Amino acid sequence: MALIVQKYGGTSVANPERIRNVAKRVAKEFDKGNDMVVILSAMAGVTDSLLRLAAEMAETPDRREVDVLLATGEQTTASLLAITLKNMGYPAISLLGFQAEVVTDCNYSNARIVDIGANRIKTLIEKRNIVVIAGFQGCDADGNITTLGRGGSDTSAVAIAAAIKADKCEIFTDVDGVYTADPNVCSKARKIDKISCEEMLEMASLGAKVLHLRSVEFALKHNVLVYVRSSFNEEEGTMLVNGSHDYDMERPVVSGITYSKSDARITLKKVPDQPGIAAKIFTPISEANINVDMIIQNTRAGGQTDLTFTVPKTEFKRALEIERKVAEEIKAEAVWGDEHIAKVSVTGIGMKSHSGVATKMFSALAAENINIIMISTSEIRISCVVEQKNAELAVRVLHTAFGLDKE
Amino acid sequence: MALIVQKYGGTSVANPERIRNVAKRVAKEFDKGNDMVVILSAMAGVTDSLLRLAAEMAETPDRREVDVLLATGEQTTASLLAITLKNMGYPAISLLGFQAEVVTDCNYSNARIVDIGANRIKTLIEKRNIVVIAGFQGCDADGNITTLGRGGSDTSAVAIAAAIKADKCEIFTDVDGVYTADPNVCSKARKIDKISCEEMLEMASLGAKVLHLRSVEFALKHNVLVYVRSSFNEEEGTMLVNGSHDYDMERPVVSGITYSKSDARITLKKVPDQPGIAAKIFTPISEANINVDMIIQNTRAGGQTDLTFTVPKTEFKRALEIERKVAEEIKAEAVWGDEHIAKVSVTGIGMKSHSGVATKMFSALAAENINIIMISTSEIRISCVVEQKNAELAVRVLHTAFGLDKE
Repeated sequence: MALIVQKYGGTSVANPERIRNVAKRVAKEFDKGNDMVVILSAMAGVTDSLLRLAAEMAETPDRREVDVLLATGEQTTASLLAITLKNMGYPAISLLGFQAEVVTDCNYSNARIVDIGANRIKTLIEKRNIVVIAGFQGCDADGNITTLGRGGSDTSAVAIAAAIKADKCEIFTDVDGVYTADPNVCSKARKIDKISCEEMLEMASLGAKVLHLRSVEFALKHNVLVYVRSSFNEEEGTMLVNGSHDYDMERPVVSGITYSKSDARITLKKVPDQPGIAAKIFTPISEANINVDMIIQNTRAGGQTDLTFTVPKTEFKRALEIERKVAEEIKAEAVWGDEHIAKVSVTGIGMKSHSGVATKMFSALAAENINIIMISTSEIRISCVVEQKNAELAVRVLHTAFGLDKE
Repeated sequence: MALIVQKYGGTSVANPERIRNVAKRVAKEFDKGNDMVVILSAMAGVTDSLLRLAAEMAETPDRREVDVLLATGEQTTASLLAITLKNMGYPAISLLGFQAEVVTDCNYSNARIVDIGANRIKTLIEKRNIVVIAGFQGCDADGNITTLGRGGSDTSAVAIAAAIKADKCEIFTDVDGVYTADPNVCSKARKIDKISCEEMLEMASLGAKVLHLRSVEFALKHNVLVYVRSSFNEEEGTMLVNGSHDYDMERPVVSGITYSKSDARITLKKVPDQPGIAAKIFTPISEANINVDMIIQNTRAGGQTDLTFTVPKTEFKRALEIERKVAEEIKAEAVWGDEHIAKVSVTGIGMKSHSGVATKMFSALAAENINIIMISTSEIRISCVVEQKNAELAVRVLHTAFGLDKE
């Protein structure tokens, strides 16, 4: 008998029939004697259509009020699942974010969970209720409704699992688990049975859309056992494990290949190579709340350098404008930007103990004449910026090169 | 400078354009220096489609969960109006039922307001915010979401107006005000400029669909000045006044003619005329939670009587079944029912001081050969049950007879 948290994503609750399917899955575990807490997303497409509605009322809709609007999506699915379970004879009860005491900061649209008062959930479980909680939403200390940002229901689920000390947290989605690469791009991609939180963090932040980034941080920090599974079959899915101790010795050095097309790059040419110049270039960018990802600097002859960095594509125009002003001030020769780039990454906790991964990566790309524009690395990841048109090819080439192809 | 509560119904917020229209009306009053609190219904049709969704999940959906579902309707319009006002440069903020501290009992789907903690609303008003509140919803003492029943947003508005001691409460709807009769039935119906709460109570409970019954009770009890107005024009509307002191001496004895087709009647024939028989007939009906409206009893010769009563049409079949069993027990000769009836009523506070109203009513109906099946009266109302096919004709005949026709 275990305490299980299950989270179902938007495609899993997209219509009444699928909600009935979810109810059956939940009931099956409950019938085995398990205690069940279920976290739900909004029906697929609902959040987008609510955002369109808000956009009809205002070009830049007030963020506090947008959160009030968006919260209706998960409120709807939570009540519908509770209605369905009750109708099947199960003791279900829905809780909204504020009722489940999911306390967040007041950063509307992208709030962070600061506390979960688990008492009400625990009391309901003790009375053998199936507790259905609206994901993605919380409330700040003043009782204002907040939302956790895209994919936030994953974070709701893992955070609640941590708060109530659940035995496991199952994230149900429309894919079988975490793959070695996006199967839509790489037909030879394989499902990964076990992956470390550290790897998952790198892969989530690099564009693997399976899990919300902060949910993995929560799993890592609070040691929550997380499974990613499909709600449309009975497959085992992918298990997230903490640290590398639980790993097979013979597992590959690289766990997965990811790519992202969400960045753009900006280059300042012939920047005077003086102390304090970098600060002049990046201070106005950070003051405009734009995140810089990669930075490279090439020293030229004659006390000048070229400086290139990447920003989210959505902030590209704003960043470019800022840098044009900066370039005038610091007397750089030119500023230009490029939106047609992609970042391809290899990730693996095995890199910590294996050398030669970078060499293998660069050689594999070179063999296909894929030009590398920028490079960045972490302890368990190497990323290369390439031309956008080469992104998919690069993924496939690296997938083969690192021995990840299925037989 | 006044403190004004405005309530807008479903047709007034049916789409983005109408919500913008509401925002303009609110802004106009705010610009005059008035403090504004706005209560909203869900978009027209939304509550019904949510109920259909619930019905897809369960034949008898759990009432607590239905309330969670329905509450999304007003949450949506409240946030959209706040977004619109903010976009126009006004300091608007939305509050849901629980945030506005609208505390109700826990009678889901038909909860009654027990308290409104007006502090948060008042604080926001003092800071010159336009406070937009989701109508129809509240929460019980344990923080569960409740709804107030069909038309409940009217009650939200009047109750909030009472709690914050507003100078007036304007109920905006899709009609110009309260009419002497349904204009769809009686083309000579006139808008009433002033009507007493007592009359409005009788008319609301008799089928005039303009105002939620409990909202009028609140207005009467807490002495709230209520106006019923159209959100589609600038007409003055109808003012609800407390008591008759404020009345013109020459106003008509009868204020309005209403009708309702929502009842059915049940007759038990040849009931033994013994003490305790009435209790035997009505106890099982009240135990089944069925409301009985009118009762008449005709004594026959030989110690037998016929007993007729009316129940809501929706409960007709259930009541008939119950009475068939009762008839066997008490040895009544027969039970039969009739769903094709209508109740036509004349209402007027002037009746208190005028006699002859009943005679005039019966004569007018008789002159058109309309048979009266049952009669009931209150201090300010006379109702006749007639054949359903005669309902509209009866309304027109009485409208003319009591001098209500417009010139």
